[in-house]
Amino acid sequence: MIIIGEKINATLNAVKTIILNRDTKSLLDLTQKQAAAGADYIDVNVGTGVGSREDEIQSIIWAVESIQGQITTPLCIDSADPKVIATGLEILNGKPSMINSAKAEKHNLETVVPLVAEHDSFLVALAMDEDGIANTVDGRLRSCEKILDACETYGVAIENVFIDPLVMPISTDINSGLVTLETISAIKKSFPGAKTVTGLSNVSYGLPRRSRLNIAFLHMCIFAGLDAAIVDPLDEELMAAVKTGEVLAGRDRHCRRYMRAFRK
Amino acid sequence: MIIIGEKINATLNAVKTIILNRDTKSLLDLTQKQAAAGADYIDVNVGTGVGSREDEIQSIIWAVESIQGQITTPLCIDSADPKVIATGLEILNGKPSMINSAKAEKHNLETVVPLVAEHDSFLVALAMDEDGIANTVDGRLRSCEKILDACETYGVAIENVFIDPLVMPISTDINSGLVTLETISAIKKSFPGAKTVTGLSNVSYGLPRRSRLNIAFLHMCIFAGLDAAIVDPLDEELMAAVKTGEVLAGRDRHCRRYMRAFRK
Repeated sequence: MIIIGEKINATLNAVKTIILNRDTKSLLDLTQKQAAAGADYIDVNVGTGVGSREDEIQSIIWAVESIQGQITTPLCIDSADPKVIATGLEILNGKPSMINSAKAEKHNLETVVPLVAEHDSFLVALAMDEDGIANTVDGRLRSCEKILDACETYGVAIENVFIDPLVMPISTDINSGLVTLETISAIKKSFPGAKTVTGLSNVSYGLPRRSRLNIAFLHMCIFAGLDAAIVDPLDEELMAAVKTGEVLAGRDRHCRRYMRAFRK
Repeated sequence: MIIIGEKINATLNAVKTIILNRDTKSLLDLTQKQAAAGADYIDVNVGTGVGSREDEIQSIIWAVESIQGQITTPLCIDSADPKVIATGLEILNGKPSMINSAKAEKHNLETVVPLVAEHDSFLVALAMDEDGIANTVDGRLRSCEKILDACETYGVAIENVFIDPLVMPISTDINSGLVTLETISAIKKSFPGAKTVTGLSNVSYGLPRRSRLNIAFLHMCIFAGLDAAIVDPLDEELMAAVKTGEVLAGRDRHCRRYMRAFRK
C-alpha cells in the first residue's frame, strides 16, 4: 500500500498558520515526521483560502523550495488550481512527483493531464464529472473512463493514474460505503493497470467512534483492491490496520511486514 | 449478521471437564452468558474425544435436556457423528435448530441432509469433499454444488443452508485469506439464496496479535457477503467489529444498531 501523508493541508487551522507565517521549521517538522512514519509521498496543499491565486502560487514556491532539499520522499502537489500545480512541478524540476488532482471535467482534464505527461508524474484523479459525484458505481466508472481517455490522448500511462472512487458519509446514505468499495473492485476489473487511491475518513462523518469505522473501512478497501491511501501516517492504529489488511489480502509474502511490525 | 456462539465446545479443556462432570450449572452459565451477549444460536459440541460414541450420545442428551427449558435461543447441534446430531434433534422435538455440520462426502450428505429436512432445521455445510479442502475458489465451489444438489434431492430449501467456505491459516499459505473471501463472494453470486457462515480465528493461527487479524478478517468477510459467524459472543471487540462492519456494508439502516452500540 502506497501511503500519501495528508498532514500538510492548509484547510487545517494549524497548517494554515504555518503557511501564512512562512514557518519553515514547522513545515519541515510535519514533513519529516510523516516520512519517518512511513509516508511514500507527502501531500502539499497550501490553499489557505486567504488571498489571491498569486498568494497560493507564492506559497507553493515557498513550500516546495523549503522541503525539497531536506527529504528524499517525493511530494504530491495538491491544488484545485492547475497553475499552482504547474508551479510546484517546475520547482521540483523533474524530481519524482504526484499531482492531486484532476477530475472528469473537460477543461480540468485539458489543463491537468498535459502537466502529468510533461513532468512524468503520477496523477490522483477523482471519479466525478461536471454533474458532481454519481450515486452509482456505473456513474463513477463513466467518470473514470473520461479520465483514462484523456490520459491516453496526452500520453500518460494508465499505470501512473491513481483513481479515487470517492467516499461519502454513510450517515447520510447507508449505501455510500458499498458504492466506494464496489467502485474500487470495478476499477481494478474494468481498467487493468490503473491504480486506486482514497482518503477514508469521510465515510464516518457524523457518527461516533470514527476511528473504528475508518479502520474497518480501510480493511474492506484493501480487500476490494485499494493500492494507495491518503491518510495521517502518524495515526499508529491506522498504519497498523494497513499492515493487517495487507497480510490478509495476500500482499505480504511470508507475512514479513506484519511480523516485523507486531512481533515485539 | 447471525451470531452462533461457539463457547460450548468440548475440545476446550474447561468445557470438556464440564461435560465429563455433568456440571449443569456451568453449562447453563456458558449458555446464558452467550445468549445475553447477543448470540442468535448456541453451538453445542460435546465430543470430548473421551469414551465411545454412546458416551457422546449420552452427553448430547444431557446437554440439550439441561439447556432447552432454560433459554429461548435456539441450539446448533454440532457433531461429526450424524447419530449424535439425530439424538439432539429428537430431544429438541421440533424446536428451531441448526445442524453443524455436513460436508460434500456422499455418505455424510446421505445421512445428515435428510435429518435437516426431517427436523426443518438449518444446516452448516463445509465446502470440502472426500479429497479434503481445495486450495482454489473453484474447488470449494464444486463442494458447494454437491451439497446444494443433495439439499435439493432431500427437499431442503437453499435459504436454510449456511455454507462455510472454510478458513486456513495465512501463516502457511499467504493466499488463504483471499481464497476464503473470494469463495464467500462466489457463493453469494453462484448460489443466490444460500447463506454463508464461518469461524474466523483459523486465519490468524501461528501469527502474533491474533485478535487484530481476526477482526480485520471479519470486516473483509462482511463486505464479501458473510451472513453468519461462529464466534465467541463474549468477545466485545469482535462483537463491536460485527456492528462496525455491518453499518459500512449498508446492512444497518439509518445506522441504528451502530449508534445504539457506540453513542454512549
